[in-house]
Amino acid sequence: MYGLIGRMTAQPGKRDELLSILTESSDAMPGCLSYIIALDPANDDAIWITEVWDSEASHKASLSLPAVQAAIGKARPLIAGFDNRTETKPVSGYGLAGKR
Amino acid sequence: MYGLIGRMTAQPGKRDELLSILTESSDAMPGCLSYIIALDPANDDAIWITEVWDSEASHKASLSLPAVQAAIGKARPLIAGFDNRTETKPVSGYGLAGKR
Repeated sequence: MYGLIGRMTAQPGKRDELLSILTESSDAMPGCLSYIIALDPANDDAIWITEVWDSEASHKASLSLPAVQAAIGKARPLIAGFDNRTETKPVSGYGLAGKR
Repeated sequence: MYGLIGRMTAQPGKRDELLSILTESSDAMPGCLSYIIALDPANDDAIWITEVWDSEASHKASLSLPAVQAAIGKARPLIAGFDNRTETKPVSGYGLAGKR
């Protein structure tokens, strides 16, 4: 499995708008086992996204899905930056869609 | 919802042993919506754990479950440290057990 952890910072005051775009486009994507969107309680502009995919290839392929491309286009002007990007190798867990 | 992201570092050479303890004890815990255990590909001793709970109270309560207490007792001597601890407030996502 392939995992990603990262933080996205919205332009000031744009987090809610960014959240709704992310939520709309995070529905079942091929190979996606977990995609969780969370607020950073310590930063009003920041969003944490933690993802698990059945493979890195599935994650890469998702980036060219029309719905994801459309979401990226809508979201890009609302994003001020990214940080804390970490790739992981999930090995087990609870709440992996389709695995349990 | 209540989320946690954190990294645990095993004593040198003890990651696999620590992983099996974590995996054994990460089965369905009351209020747990997601509990993912992942290797850090850049550090042979490190494990990332990302969690989502229906509330902070459920997370706190889980720490006193007998199975979790037993796992903590077994794991403690194998753990060298913790870092990157981040609390989050999950708002949506895919792969949240029982939510989808």
